[in-house]
Amino acid sequence: SRSIDLAVIPGDGIGQEVVAQGLKVLSAVLPQDVKLETKEFDFGARRYRATGETLTDADLDALKQHDAILLGAIGDPSVPSGVLERGFLLKLRFAFDHHVNLRPSKLLPGVETPLAGQPEIDFVVVREGTEGPYTGNGGTIRKGTEHEVATEVSVNTAFGVERVVRDAFARAQARPRKKLTLVHKNNVLTFAGHLWTNIFNKVAEEFPEVTTDYIHVDAATIYLVTDPARFDVIVTDNLFGDIITDLAAAVSGGIGVAASGNINPSGEFPSMFEPVHGSAPDIAGQGKADPSATVLSVALLLRHLGYEAEAARIEEAVAADLAERVGKPARSTEEIGDALALRVAG
Amino acid sequence: SRSIDLAVIPGDGIGQEVVAQGLKVLSAVLPQDVKLETKEFDFGARRYRATGETLTDADLDALKQHDAILLGAIGDPSVPSGVLERGFLLKLRFAFDHHVNLRPSKLLPGVETPLAGQPEIDFVVVREGTEGPYTGNGGTIRKGTEHEVATEVSVNTAFGVERVVRDAFARAQARPRKKLTLVHKNNVLTFAGHLWTNIFNKVAEEFPEVTTDYIHVDAATIYLVTDPARFDVIVTDNLFGDIITDLAAAVSGGIGVAASGNINPSGEFPSMFEPVHGSAPDIAGQGKADPSATVLSVALLLRHLGYEAEAARIEEAVAADLAERVGKPARSTEEIGDALALRVAG
Ligand SMILES: CC(C)[C@H](C(=O)O)[C@@H](O)C(=O)O
Ligand SMILES: CC(C)[C@H](C(=O)O)[C@@H](O)C(=O)O
Repeated sequence: SRSIDLAVIPGDGIGQEVVAQGLKVLSAVLPQDVKLETKEFDFGARRYRATGETLTDADLDALKQHDAILLGAIGDPSVPSGVLERGFLLKLRFAFDHHVNLRPSKLLPGVETPLAGQPEIDFVVVREGTEGPYTGNGGTIRKGTEHEVATEVSVNTAFGVERVVRDAFARAQARPRKKLTLVHKNNVLTFAGHLWTNIFNKVAEEFPEVTTDYIHVDAATIYLVTDPARFDVIVTDNLFGDIITDLAAAVSGGIGVAASGNINPSGEFPSMFEPVHGSAPDIAGQGKADPSATVLSVALLLRHLGYEAEAARIEEAVAADLAERVGKPARSTEEIGDALALRVAG
Repeated sequence: SRSIDLAVIPGDGIGQEVVAQGLKVLSAVLPQDVKLETKEFDFGARRYRATGETLTDADLDALKQHDAILLGAIGDPSVPSGVLERGFLLKLRFAFDHHVNLRPSKLLPGVETPLAGQPEIDFVVVREGTEGPYTGNGGTIRKGTEHEVATEVSVNTAFGVERVVRDAFARAQARPRKKLTLVHKNNVLTFAGHLWTNIFNKVAEEFPEVTTDYIHVDAATIYLVTDPARFDVIVTDNLFGDIITDLAAAVSGGIGVAASGNINPSGEFPSMFEPVHGSAPDIAGQGKADPSATVLSVALLLRHLGYEAEAARIEEAVAADLAERVGKPARSTEEIGDALALRVAG
């Protein structure tokens, strides 16, 4: 009999609320014969304040035992900026080699977009997750003086770029349009730019059916608001991916519905799934958060574990729920979760 | 008697066409007693193909003799990506210490925006122009092999950050709303992030009337499409500035109307003014390019040289011209230039 053994990290702020709904929908969608086990981990701001710990080796060992990880959100104003981001979120992505950071953008019917004319939006960003300016390389000399110099080093390897580029080509190949766009800034960041561009062109030869395209990151932000339909799959570096996926989320219905997967394709380590939004401390505990992004992250999780039909059922349920919202009064986090659970079970 | 001695670099593609209109409007707006002298420089793709040169020491010496520089656009598909960008555009910015890269965004009445609901947009981005990931630091080892490593080093100095932050505070102070937002990614790029944040907070003490704000670059792209009215003046690093000003141009009417100044505030070197758009080889020579961005760059140039009334007259003329376009057939580059010249003279 089948089973899913899930590590759950509700985290801070609205993380708690949205994860509860994500788990509710997960239980509802799974067939009877699949045994779901969950173990909750109390990581985030509270633990950091109490113990000074963000993510220990023992934590990593414990997480490693599970099939996948569902995360709500991490971050709180009581913790200095960077501590939980570098000490928890990025540490986990690097420790578990989550080099494929998958962020789909789809503007669903009935969902509001800040763009005029309800454009067609249906693309996936494959963001590299373990290199680039996120490696923590760099440093500071003469700190706090008028002669301070601070550097940040973007590290890019053929190994790291090739595996994520190949993953993106495979994803493009599997989609109807079969189009892959490389987003970089190879006219200015020429060292990293040449590496990315050369590897992209080399791997392209293995995927003759995939149409390829290159766009500078600055121009990509223009297309994301003037012509988002031009994108099918995008592959890009860690920092550019961070920036354009927030914009992509904004134009395709907001971070209330943006899901993401931090994927280790080899399965050597568990992959982690999380909404793109943060912990939103300003609305935490009020039942106002939209759990849809977390529920859609559960769909990505199920697809990753091989439950394609269940993933699709969740995505259809969220789409139907969003379409029915138009003109109706706002519902609570729990009401939305209940409605989605009902739909997927139905 | 007063005089302006201008270096003119039409450059490639539509650069030629739009600069001709910019100069036409400049001549029309200047009072009789101001003597305008222009000297044209043939830089760009053609020269590079013919001589292999992009920008020599002799070129820099010649440019240095002028009060300011007006540039059309540089770049052509016949030249490998990066050659003219690094060898001309960035070389000039660095050689003339253009550390204040000024990019205003204003959505004018009648101008189309990809955003729904015609939001209010009126802000200025002060982009650092001589540091960050644009310094060309970094390198490649084992090039072309499966063990290639390519790095890009973002270099940030207290000296460089402080002068641009102070410039931005002064600009915010001079505007009615007096609000300055720092855009960075200080939760991930902690070395550079701390330098920027500390200096920003330190300089803020000298400007008690200016309201300050901090936003991560990824979130900034969200606000630029969901709530652009929240911005008054933004200060940011070279790469983040590159990215968000393209997005800013897109939401506030497109790169057809986006102007920029590469400013050396001390006046030690001439400042350079240019439209944000590129050379657009696909429409070059067809009279289709909108010269408004170049004409607005001429306004920035005049303001920089102390001709505030003339700068304002140009901006009013462009606004009036754009408002009158609605529902009318498209005009040629030259027709728009003629109309603007007539307006500013009138
Ligand atoms: C919180 C932060 C470290 C993170 C990132 O920059 O990757 C976030 O913005 C994201 O996109 O997941
Ligand atoms: C052409 C390129 C070097 C340049 C930059 O990246 O600064 C351009 O994008 C700009 O914004 O002026």
